[in-house]
Amino acid sequence: MSTTSTTPLRFLKMHGLGNDFVIVDRRTDARPLPAAAIAAVGNRRTGVGCDQFITIEPGDAEADAVMGIYNGDDGSPSGACGNATRCVAHLLMQETGKAEVTIRTVSGLLRGWRDVATGLVTVDMGPARLDWQEIPLAEPRDTLHADLSVGPLHDPVCVSMGNPHAVFFVDDVAAVDLPAVGPQVERHPLFPARTNVEIVQVLDRGRVRMRVWERAAGITMACGSGACAVGVAAVRRGLTDRRVAVALDGGTLTIEWREADGHVLMTGPVATAFAGTLDPSLLPAPAPALT
Amino acid sequence: MSTTSTTPLRFLKMHGLGNDFVIVDRRTDARPLPAAAIAAVGNRRTGVGCDQFITIEPGDAEADAVMGIYNGDDGSPSGACGNATRCVAHLLMQETGKAEVTIRTVSGLLRGWRDVATGLVTVDMGPARLDWQEIPLAEPRDTLHADLSVGPLHDPVCVSMGNPHAVFFVDDVAAVDLPAVGPQVERHPLFPARTNVEIVQVLDRGRVRMRVWERAAGITMACGSGACAVGVAAVRRGLTDRRVAVALDGGTLTIEWREADGHVLMTGPVATAFAGTLDPSLLPAPAPALT
Repeated sequence: MSTTSTTPLRFLKMHGLGNDFVIVDRRTDARPLPAAAIAAVGNRRTGVGCDQFITIEPGDAEADAVMGIYNGDDGSPSGACGNATRCVAHLLMQETGKAEVTIRTVSGLLRGWRDVATGLVTVDMGPARLDWQEIPLAEPRDTLHADLSVGPLHDPVCVSMGNPHAVFFVDDVAAVDLPAVGPQVERHPLFPARTNVEIVQVLDRGRVRMRVWERAAGITMACGSGACAVGVAAVRRGLTDRRVAVALDGGTLTIEWREADGHVLMTGPVATAFAGTLDPSLLPAPAPALT
Repeated sequence: MSTTSTTPLRFLKMHGLGNDFVIVDRRTDARPLPAAAIAAVGNRRTGVGCDQFITIEPGDAEADAVMGIYNGDDGSPSGACGNATRCVAHLLMQETGKAEVTIRTVSGLLRGWRDVATGLVTVDMGPARLDWQEIPLAEPRDTLHADLSVGPLHDPVCVSMGNPHAVFFVDDVAAVDLPAVGPQVERHPLFPARTNVEIVQVLDRGRVRMRVWERAAGITMACGSGACAVGVAAVRRGLTDRRVAVALDGGTLTIEWREADGHVLMTGPVATAFAGTLDPSLLPAPAPALT
């Protein structure tokens, strides 16, 4: 069913550990949403505000729904977002009553399910990629002990979760000046596509504390793919078991690097902040004055 | 009418030049809203997000309504907000059909009205205060030519609009390194309560361009009281007429320093971004996980 541009746009505002999303159900409202309209919605002062703008589109033979992912700042398409996938999986399970749902994204089919006791939602993030070409690195290097030192950081594990990660184990994550050293690692010549930077302190075989410098975004509260890379790196180094609680600034995700197929499972909370109806005059021009 | 804590909290998200507000009608929903609940709503990632949280309370013999003003970051009470007053005046005029409304705040009665042709909303901000004790300054000083130099800034006009302002006229507002010099002026010993810092470039007798360093907030898009102080300062120096268009980073406000009574009138656009219903489980605890 299509709606006219004078109909308010209904949306949900959700988040996973503070990584926040505006979610629009395009199965009931298929109006055109050009990048300028998404950016207007994404503005935190004159619109709604979000890290990513998420659309739920009709499913197909393999998927319960198709998920679109766009950056909230400029409306450009994005390849993947684990926390948003957990939020959409939650909505689809609520809607269908299914115990497990399949979501199609531009990066492929993703499966999500919920732990009934805790309400926590898991998404299968697919396999970790460990070859140096897949990170990518600029030259052949052992990704388990990449020969690299930047300031106080040494000897990272390099992991691709579809995007590049350099994981450094340190004695005290609070002692690292991440705003200073993060951008130096991100733009080091070893990483031709730049890299996300994680610093990790192992607490015991089931728990680690991490902080993240995200490529192009800086320090963030909760990077889902970063938590996955940290879980994989800790297992590769023999520092933790295959299932580990990863404490980020925004909360805790549980990461399991499944032995059977090498897939990475990410589990954590999802929350709905509010439901809203957007003044259609906001689309696509930002911040109109009421007359 | 009181509502229970399981009822969603209805709100409007409005802004004036990007200075943004969550507005709750307490005449129909009088549930307790402690500071922790307001701060949870004010969080831009896990709540709704706003500069100020505004309540509309029942009016009295003199006022169409009482307006409560709270800071969005911690829920603490705030004395005044011109842009929010314009938004509330807009809502009350819409509701009552009146051409002018009176709003009671902790700072007194404020009158607001609308230009029918443009839809722009004016609020009477009351008198500017020009005595050095009222700014306040630390010692007797001519507020029209305060003897002060900080970096490239010299010879400010000092004005109180209920809060302190130091207004510097410059040749080119873009050429001033405001993030560097703003905090130095804000914390100069001449200002025992600190000060807001405005830099102003006069374009002609009816137009100025300004940038603002707000006390405790830094550079902002639109400071209503700052625009008022700039209008007053420009008239005191004989640089503009009594009615002047003040271009801020977030848009343009028209300021009139009325000759008859010395009151300052602030006129500009208001906009409604969206209406929302907040999950009551968000109050007062922030960011609960859905189960």
